Amino acid sequence: MSGRTAVRRLSVAFQGELGAYSQSAVYRFFGSRSVRVVPLPTLQEVFSSVISSKPSAPDLGMVPLENSTAGSVGESFDFLASSRVRIVGETSIPIRHCLIVSPGAQFSGIRKVMSHPQALSQCRRFLAKEGKGWQQVPAYDTAGSVKMIAESRLTDTAAIASELAGKIYGMRVTRKGIEDDHTNATRFVLVEPVRQGRSAFVNKPAGRHKTAVIFFTAHEPGSLVKALTCFSEHGINLMRIESRPIRGKPWEYSFYVDVDGSVEQKACRDAIRDLRARTLSVKVLGSYPRSV
Amino acid sequence: MSGRTAVRRLSVAFQGELGAYSQSAVYRFFGSRSVRVVPLPTLQEVFSSVISSKPSAPDLGMVPLENSTAGSVGESFDFLASSRVRIVGETSIPIRHCLIVSPGAQFSGIRKVMSHPQALSQCRRFLAKEGKGWQQVPAYDTAGSVKMIAESRLTDTAAIASELAGKIYGMRVTRKGIEDDHTNATRFVLVEPVRQGRSAFVNKPAGRHKTAVIFFTAHEPGSLVKALTCFSEHGINLMRIESRPIRGKPWEYSFYVDVDGSVEQKACRDAIRDLRARTLSVKVLGSYPRSV
Repeated sequence: MSGRTAVRRLSVAFQGELGAYSQSAVYRFFGSRSVRVVPLPTLQEVFSSVISSKPSAPDLGMVPLENSTAGSVGESFDFLASSRVRIVGETSIPIRHCLIVSPGAQFSGIRKVMSHPQALSQCRRFLAKEGKGWQQVPAYDTAGSVKMIAESRLTDTAAIASELAGKIYGMRVTRKGIEDDHTNATRFVLVEPVRQGRSAFVNKPAGRHKTAVIFFTAHEPGSLVKALTCFSEHGINLMRIESRPIRGKPWEYSFYVDVDGSVEQKACRDAIRDLRARTLSVKVLGSYPRSV
Repeated sequence: MSGRTAVRRLSVAFQGELGAYSQSAVYRFFGSRSVRVVPLPTLQEVFSSVISSKPSAPDLGMVPLENSTAGSVGESFDFLASSRVRIVGETSIPIRHCLIVSPGAQFSGIRKVMSHPQALSQCRRFLAKEGKGWQQVPAYDTAGSVKMIAESRLTDTAAIASELAGKIYGMRVTRKGIEDDHTNATRFVLVEPVRQGRSAFVNKPAGRHKTAVIFFTAHEPGSLVKALTCFSEHGINLMRIESRPIRGKPWEYSFYVDVDGSVEQKACRDAIRDLRARTLSVKVLGSYPRSV
């Protein structure tokens, strides 16, 4: 893809089993380029592996930030705040659920359906209509449930997961697009470690950028509005705001904002300078090309 | 409790099995008064039962809004926005996890530990130290896992849940306060149906109030800051802000805010009047006495 230059074959970590929607996000972002995907069990491991100084550490991590139906992935915000990473890109993928069975299995033989509870609830209408009487079995991963069915050679159990998961485990997709809300999508960001003298990833296409910032305000009246007006005073549009609880301080919050602009623009830098003056602390998570 | 007057014995619905933390919140709010608790499987049923016109409908619902570690309960915000309910009160309870076993079971005989995955992850330190080698079994409810162990008379399996759940199912609490973060708390709001000529609940103690508002802005630059400054212009402090995705419109949001004040105060009413003029729509969810 033009504008993106790798100095060597990139490796990208994500949370989940092979075939997870996060892996689809990696492929969507890098197109057909050969990246090496590194599936890891938890988001915590994605962040810690990316910032690790081991030679085997992945170059980048692809992490989910928000789903257009379920909302924010709170854990990702907390790791962005606490890890030495910067956001270098974003992508979003439609969540297109498939009903997946073993190669020899028949639709009429399905008695159970297994998936992440969120995926099961996103297919409520399909299951009420075509899956009457099926036992719903909650699992901890969409792709993981395909893997489980494949390994156990179950023929009475279907999984709900991505088409990619069906392919990876050699299973059969019997129904596509069974989600209730066809607009449902998840936005991911690509993170790299903040480290001197190393930049595995160069990504500076022309066009509009977003800048992501986390800040902490004093716990006093008016502090949040005072902070947010820094952006409007410099003509910078606030695209999104998210409160996150501060650990150990119930009912106090940090704030995550996405603004329209890049730190390479003076207005954006000035707004962030003012923000530093009006808040307790500011962390710029990165300026990156908009894709959403 | 002074200032709270019931015209008859109140019934309060909550999501979860008997013994859920939501039930503890009901008891915390109503003290030792005799309320009837109505456990329901889903939050959706809590909201739909409260607004139901059936004579058997519960008077009120107690719903979790945010946890001081995990953050917001997105589903509750969405039901508040879409249901004909108003918030009439709030309470918060510490999340004090207990390790619960069958009456005859020994700590040394534990081989498995069952709970909601969030509860398991909140006790990571305890489990690493005292639960080495225990198989962790994720379940869909903390109290539900106690119920399951009680009904199956398991002696090799412990559950992580509230002390109340241990009592309700006649089980034994072997360890208390096993959560990593002892400041962890959940905030709940009490909702009643918006209905003419009926008010099951009167709750007007003196002291500070909060007002909860949901609004939708035009999807254009500056609209959010323009909306939020309505409050600061009238000297009303913004206590909290939350973005929620709009179903079917990926990457557009509604905003939930808590402000310091009551709609019985002119400044607060004026701020909301201005908010209506600067946004597409506003829903006042209620003014209620602060407890957090």
